[in-house]
Amino acid sequence: MRLANVDGRAVLLTADDRGVDVESASGGKFGPGLPAIYEDWKGFHSWAESADTAGAITFSRAQLGSPSPAPRQIVAVGLNYREHAAESGFAVPDRLPPVFTKFDSSLSGPDTRVVLPPGGNTDWEVELVVVIGARAAGIDATEAWDYVAGLAVGQDLSERISQLAGPAPQFSLGKSFPGFAPVGPWLVTPDSVPDKDDLELGCALDGEVVQQGRTRDLIFPVAELLSKLSNTIVLYPGDLIFTGTPAGVGQGRQPQRFIKPGETLRSWIEGIGELNQTFIDSPEA
Amino acid sequence: MRLANVDGRAVLLTADDRGVDVESASGGKFGPGLPAIYEDWKGFHSWAESADTAGAITFSRAQLGSPSPAPRQIVAVGLNYREHAAESGFAVPDRLPPVFTKFDSSLSGPDTRVVLPPGGNTDWEVELVVVIGARAAGIDATEAWDYVAGLAVGQDLSERISQLAGPAPQFSLGKSFPGFAPVGPWLVTPDSVPDKDDLELGCALDGEVVQQGRTRDLIFPVAELLSKLSNTIVLYPGDLIFTGTPAGVGQGRQPQRFIKPGETLRSWIEGIGELNQTFIDSPEA
Repeated sequence: MRLANVDGRAVLLTADDRGVDVESASGGKFGPGLPAIYEDWKGFHSWAESADTAGAITFSRAQLGSPSPAPRQIVAVGLNYREHAAESGFAVPDRLPPVFTKFDSSLSGPDTRVVLPPGGNTDWEVELVVVIGARAAGIDATEAWDYVAGLAVGQDLSERISQLAGPAPQFSLGKSFPGFAPVGPWLVTPDSVPDKDDLELGCALDGEVVQQGRTRDLIFPVAELLSKLSNTIVLYPGDLIFTGTPAGVGQGRQPQRFIKPGETLRSWIEGIGELNQTFIDSPEA
Repeated sequence: MRLANVDGRAVLLTADDRGVDVESASGGKFGPGLPAIYEDWKGFHSWAESADTAGAITFSRAQLGSPSPAPRQIVAVGLNYREHAAESGFAVPDRLPPVFTKFDSSLSGPDTRVVLPPGGNTDWEVELVVVIGARAAGIDATEAWDYVAGLAVGQDLSERISQLAGPAPQFSLGKSFPGFAPVGPWLVTPDSVPDKDDLELGCALDGEVVQQGRTRDLIFPVAELLSKLSNTIVLYPGDLIFTGTPAGVGQGRQPQRFIKPGETLRSWIEGIGELNQTFIDSPEA
């Protein structure tokens, strides 16, 4: 099952990538927006499995927003793939990966134009994003998938100069410029991807594949990550979890490579879909 | 002017610490809760200056919640006092201080019982908290105070083992256990404190003063901080900014000292008020 945010309205997708408006199709029981749906995810999921999709309409990708447009929390995880930790010059985390946030104002839909911060070094980080479907506090890894509404593609765009500025390495600010957290193209439920614990993901800059990995290589896989997080913080319906990026970022290359104005970035995850970002050097471009 | 969150309702305080319910007193124009008030802060402030406070009622401190109970973003700043950077073993930040979040689930009102994470080293950090009163993007320091609704006392409670776990020092998770972000006791407008850029702040553990400083010693004062933040992220009405802590934390002492079950922490800022935390070692205590 796939659920999209089309102009702020929840839309249930059909196999041919058209969709039905959830509020209309459910007679007002669910929708119109997505946040309330996550508050009653199990109820929604039951309804959606047998929903009448007659009258599905087409929409354009430009209408798509983040599948969770107003999360209470955006949790992001660093150094969660071995080879990426190595290319970043850090040891592999054992007990706990670095956890930070991408501030809410950086969140966007899947297909966007992104302004490159002047004087910055903007880098790519494709990531599997988990959308939370039930309040989770102190959960075990064995039950963690029950708290997941679905999966999406995310880009943890990162401006490296800000990230490394200051006396302690920091993540949140340099990763939170406007548009630095595209998510989408829609939510896909875990039972609708080939293998929820082993998905191919990657991204290509101007057509050249720069990252390619598999989520089976996550040091802290989704279930373990959610368990660890939920033993410190409470996870809420609609929360977004960026799970970390595989190797291949520009910062770790010889020579280093960062995104230039005019370049395009395509990011994908097997069985979910893709994001498309075009980069510009000023809002007026 | 002082505005409190009493059982989720906005209450305008009188000089004798009683208050009037904002929704009732404004004939439904403002309230009942606080989040909507921050969306129209200037309108609210104008109304509140001449509001009729006849019929003010008493309330207990146990009824108080965070003056912004549902912020879109909680931004926290590290190492923003010279002596605290030194006691933490870090250089003084020049271009940018470390910026992180305290996750939403850690937010609480001013007087609470807090569970000490088992096996952790829980430390105190009294801080001036700024509540944002207008959308701020790319603002100058000279105009930054116009975007502030008011000020409150905050405690950036910090579990040091989680904070320092892993290959990169991290802030967000170890500072986000439940109840680790008490804020209050209410919002005080900048024109109602003795000097908005020079307030005495401190905290006392079981009656012993452990931190005492003045906000004039902030490396990045409020106005400069808001300008810097707003040039990366967008600040929204109701957002909370923890501005950093002065010297005197337990981690920096010889010998180190952390909070024990049964101890109480009182935190204050001149002209604003105080927070009171009691620490317990399990939810059942």
